[in-house]
Amino acid sequence: MPDLILPGLIDVHTHLRVPGGAHKETFATGTAAALAGGITMVLAMPNTNPPLTTPEAMEMARSAAVVDARCDVGLYAGAAPEDIQQLPELAASAVALKIYLNDTFGKLRVDDLPALVACFNLWPREKPIALHAERQSVAVAIGLAAIYDRPIHIAHVSRREEIELIADAKGRGLPVTCEVAPHHLFLSAEDAPRLGALGDMRPVLGTPDDVAALWAHINDTVDCIATDHAPHTLLEKRAAEPPPGVPGLETSLPLMLAAVQDGRLTVERLTALMHDNPRRIFNLPQQPDTTVEVDMTPWVIPAGGWRTKCGWTPFAGLTAGGRVRRVVLRGRAVVEDGEVLAAPGSGRVINGM
Amino acid sequence: MPDLILPGLIDVHTHLRVPGGAHKETFATGTAAALAGGITMVLAMPNTNPPLTTPEAMEMARSAAVVDARCDVGLYAGAAPEDIQQLPELAASAVALKIYLNDTFGKLRVDDLPALVACFNLWPREKPIALHAERQSVAVAIGLAAIYDRPIHIAHVSRREEIELIADAKGRGLPVTCEVAPHHLFLSAEDAPRLGALGDMRPVLGTPDDVAALWAHINDTVDCIATDHAPHTLLEKRAAEPPPGVPGLETSLPLMLAAVQDGRLTVERLTALMHDNPRRIFNLPQQPDTTVEVDMTPWVIPAGGWRTKCGWTPFAGLTAGGRVRRVVLRGRAVVEDGEVLAAPGSGRVINGM
Repeated sequence: MPDLILPGLIDVHTHLRVPGGAHKETFATGTAAALAGGITMVLAMPNTNPPLTTPEAMEMARSAAVVDARCDVGLYAGAAPEDIQQLPELAASAVALKIYLNDTFGKLRVDDLPALVACFNLWPREKPIALHAERQSVAVAIGLAAIYDRPIHIAHVSRREEIELIADAKGRGLPVTCEVAPHHLFLSAEDAPRLGALGDMRPVLGTPDDVAALWAHINDTVDCIATDHAPHTLLEKRAAEPPPGVPGLETSLPLMLAAVQDGRLTVERLTALMHDNPRRIFNLPQQPDTTVEVDMTPWVIPAGGWRTKCGWTPFAGLTAGGRVRRVVLRGRAVVEDGEVLAAPGSGRVINGM
Repeated sequence: MPDLILPGLIDVHTHLRVPGGAHKETFATGTAAALAGGITMVLAMPNTNPPLTTPEAMEMARSAAVVDARCDVGLYAGAAPEDIQQLPELAASAVALKIYLNDTFGKLRVDDLPALVACFNLWPREKPIALHAERQSVAVAIGLAAIYDRPIHIAHVSRREEIELIADAKGRGLPVTCEVAPHHLFLSAEDAPRLGALGDMRPVLGTPDDVAALWAHINDTVDCIATDHAPHTLLEKRAAEPPPGVPGLETSLPLMLAAVQDGRLTVERLTALMHDNPRRIFNLPQQPDTTVEVDMTPWVIPAGGWRTKCGWTPFAGLTAGGRVRRVVLRGRAVVEDGEVLAAPGSGRVINGM
């Protein structure tokens, strides 16, 4: 008997690097990592190369997902100022729109107000808009949500000022939701010197006070735990100008289970953060007969031995609260004794509602 | 008989330079210029030296106004990150709070989100908040207004993207008002090369398309005409790094009357923009028995001969639609045949409601 049975988890923030970055992740390797981490559905980010801002690029990613994905995959469309007019066409094959208000890996930043307004006007109302918005940009995003009366989702909130503003906005009934990444909950700027490039991502690691604020809002303001799984090879991370981003698909649930073990989180809240809320916010389909069986024996996260193609983790040495033993997706065992059985192409590509 | 009788006009955006800049304007010279332009009440901006961010500085400005002002004067308090906690105390002697989200003359910029949120939480709800907000910062301001459910006023709107966002926000019922300065209505970037430093202000002159957008919204979205009278001496303007800002108190009504002459504006709308709306938005007291008598003979604006201490205008050569002949303030003639009769100290210092 497993210690715990969860629904198939959903990660609304995953970078799978195809097209353009298959040397560090593919749909086959990234979704194997997802399943091993108890995640049966991922939403893939559009800052690929080329980025998912045109129907042609979307079709490249979609075709690769159809052939390679081992779990269910939805795609984000990306907003680029020069491709804004293509958003309605992109929407047909995307689950949601991603807008980068601040700098990240790649060149998808939109900070021109007319382009932002065009995104809000052109993107279909029934599909969500997620934003990379830090500090003052969170207020920009909430302002646009208020003016154009449509829900927004703030990605990887990392600072006290951001989670408190979102809490205030929710208190006023404004249509904003948000996610927090495990690295912003289990690491802080105090770990950054030790980790070097392996602890560098966008947003950067917060102060211990930021981390405390995220935990303080975990039961009210935080809607989703999302990995922001952003693999780069160790070679890239050891280069002179390492790209920001860290992997996280295989460690997200194990780390959150540590919070369950030490009483910071109930299993019910964990299920809301990693399944119920992601599904509701992004209008995602049910996965019938889908379960994740968990062994609640604590274990120390190792440096290697991962299914993600990048092969490393920033969390090595931390104690996880449990591990995935078995995953069943639509009635079929896709993980057994920690081994991924699902073949490439067995996952579905979804378009949202 | 005058061609037109208006109420005493209100300018909600005036820089009177005291304390710290009496070589370019004082309450005595600036309010003489105001009266000569048909303006019987001005709200003075806080980016003085020292800035009006402490009770001590407010008292310096207030004392000077009591002694020197020839028309009624209200003071803005300024927000500076290091003085935020003093805002409730400042409010007692201020009409409104000014927050600079973008760079301007002086060092009052606040772009730190916690400081901005503190302004919205600490400033008394019954007193307005005005913001210097350009481009994306307009969305920040509207976001904060929506979250903290309090009216904001956007200063000197200068761009199509800004007035259109404000129009959309008003359409959604959000509590935002705005002002436009005559230099953004009667000059454009095409005049900038000809004017040099004399055409440099913040926000900078817009494109002809920006100017067209402001005029297109003059009857619905624009709430106030405000001068942003920001005098600097010609010596300063001819220096290597001239400070931004241009005078405008004496030319605001004459220029707007040109729009009345050519049918772009009704007298009723002009009165709303230059009296009714400013009074309502800033909760300003009535001025009983106060009128401005106007001669509607067009005239060409000269380079010199002004009451503002800086002595120049960026509008020289433009044709105005009329001029102020006589102003009566609380039953006393303060301007007669274009001559200012009001003595320093005859104006009142107001605190708002």
